[in-house]
Amino acid sequence: MSERLVWQDVETARERIEPFARRTPVETCRTIDATCGGTVFLKCENFQRTGSFKFRGATNAIASLSPSERARGVYAPSSGNHAQAVALAAKLHGIPAHLVMPEDSNPAKVAATRGYGARIVFCPATHEGRREMAARVGEETGATLVHSHDDVRVIAGQGTATWELIDDVGKLDLVLAPVGGGGLLSGTLIAARHLLPHVRVIGCEPEGADDAARSLRTGVRVTDFVPRTIADGLRTPLGENGFAILRRDLDDIVLVSEREIVDAMRFVWERAKLVIEPSSAVAVAPLLVGKVDVRGKRVGVILSGGNVDFAPYFAALDGQAHGPRSA
Amino acid sequence: MSERLVWQDVETARERIEPFARRTPVETCRTIDATCGGTVFLKCENFQRTGSFKFRGATNAIASLSPSERARGVYAPSSGNHAQAVALAAKLHGIPAHLVMPEDSNPAKVAATRGYGARIVFCPATHEGRREMAARVGEETGATLVHSHDDVRVIAGQGTATWELIDDVGKLDLVLAPVGGGGLLSGTLIAARHLLPHVRVIGCEPEGADDAARSLRTGVRVTDFVPRTIADGLRTPLGENGFAILRRDLDDIVLVSEREIVDAMRFVWERAKLVIEPSSAVAVAPLLVGKVDVRGKRVGVILSGGNVDFAPYFAALDGQAHGPRSA
Repeated sequence: MSERLVWQDVETARERIEPFARRTPVETCRTIDATCGGTVFLKCENFQRTGSFKFRGATNAIASLSPSERARGVYAPSSGNHAQAVALAAKLHGIPAHLVMPEDSNPAKVAATRGYGARIVFCPATHEGRREMAARVGEETGATLVHSHDDVRVIAGQGTATWELIDDVGKLDLVLAPVGGGGLLSGTLIAARHLLPHVRVIGCEPEGADDAARSLRTGVRVTDFVPRTIADGLRTPLGENGFAILRRDLDDIVLVSEREIVDAMRFVWERAKLVIEPSSAVAVAPLLVGKVDVRGKRVGVILSGGNVDFAPYFAALDGQAHGPRSA
Repeated sequence: MSERLVWQDVETARERIEPFARRTPVETCRTIDATCGGTVFLKCENFQRTGSFKFRGATNAIASLSPSERARGVYAPSSGNHAQAVALAAKLHGIPAHLVMPEDSNPAKVAATRGYGARIVFCPATHEGRREMAARVGEETGATLVHSHDDVRVIAGQGTATWELIDDVGKLDLVLAPVGGGGLLSGTLIAARHLLPHVRVIGCEPEGADDAARSLRTGVRVTDFVPRTIADGLRTPLGENGFAILRRDLDDIVLVSEREIVDAMRFVWERAKLVIEPSSAVAVAPLLVGKVDVRGKRVGVILSGGNVDFAPYFAALDGQAHGPRSA
């Protein structure tokens, strides 16, 4: 049972988030174009505040709260980008935020979330433990849940990225976005279809977390699976609202292997000089390996985020001597 | 004894390179601004073709050759970014290029240079071995030397980056650029001073290769030193032309430690989501550690390049299991 979501919700979201979110740039890369034969426009949500598109949806949800809801604050379970997004959006609105994070969360992400002034409540690193702790925090605080991907205000907020992209570059033949919980892809679909009725929208998903592909194939939403992918933003099961929107409108889902994800991430780092996280690479990989034919086409790709932990790289570097070598 | 170089040379360079070089974007980063208290504009030469500003100078030098010089081609000693720049510029002009590279050069850089169709001649990894081999290649081929930083056409070409930056963002109070051989900083100085007579231009140099700072202090160009820095693009001694230009006009040189360079690189990767190489980080570090006071100021920074070898990162990644963990 999904709530109805329409283009006007994206318009409202854009007005709401404009004072807070960054209008991110669109980048191009000659080597990517040469590799796939199309003209590719990279919507750089890795440059968004908190390092991912999640800030758009969180801001839209929080900006739409009533005064009494604001007073009680918001809560959300998340170990990743959504936690940081909710924390900063809440801070900018001057309201309390309670983030329920698994105890094995990346310390850098916990520190960033806390750095925005949010309260962190740790929970066991299981679906069950997370659900229980989130329910308890909701009850105790009376705060409003900001769901990471199934809240319609969140989905509408994510759609604003595609709107900006099309504003900047004009007509596109295809738009590619990664799919995890489905919030970004649903928002992308609503915005792209409204602005460009003939555009093809393609979801990109890891083989190791292919619940959206299976859900759309069978018509029954798959929620019980163990994700095995480096793309940590895409391990979440597809939400109800996202499922309804994708079923109605999505053109296709393309699956990519772990090898393809890592190779695409490396390609974008080394050739496009953009720091993107594995979840973003999932939407680039199909172009690089030819799983989507974009020859002669204008293609938009939503680079969803850039939150990479470089600690291992720098730990290794610190162990090295920096010998002299002329350039 | 330096050749005279004036603003008109930069104008000519811009016309020459326009069909070939990318007009790179200018990025901003809220976290950098918050850290230093200024408004910082990052001129992204990491997005330039071949991954560094070097392509500008090489293209200007090669585009200015006479027909008979073109027939004989060009040569250059370089283990780094200049090699790739000369190779691609020569390819785009349809002329032969001979690159003299030390036998211990990074295999990725050798492959990239060869990929542009250049001939590679390996030499011993010493200054002497390099000089001898370069001289021999010059004699045997009759090709024209494209010096990596002391050729006035190369310097004029590098100045076009600053021109574009000022075109895009308008008035600046300060411009920071790294200094190695001095080509980039000299070109930056000529362009910045012509367009903004009151701008302060500051060179940024590693403590472990501080020959430019010492040369300017004593008035005698230091050429005999052993560089010890991770900033591989800045290990070259300051050239004659660069020295003359910097002596006349440069406002200041700031030195940064290896720790400051690495920290700044990491900061830009993790917070600005831009892949920059250590030499670029040398011009960001002074802002982050407060060695240049930019509070309330508009600051341009030339991010000179983004050629980083991520092989160690991905080798480590391949050794890991990608366990499930929800986002």
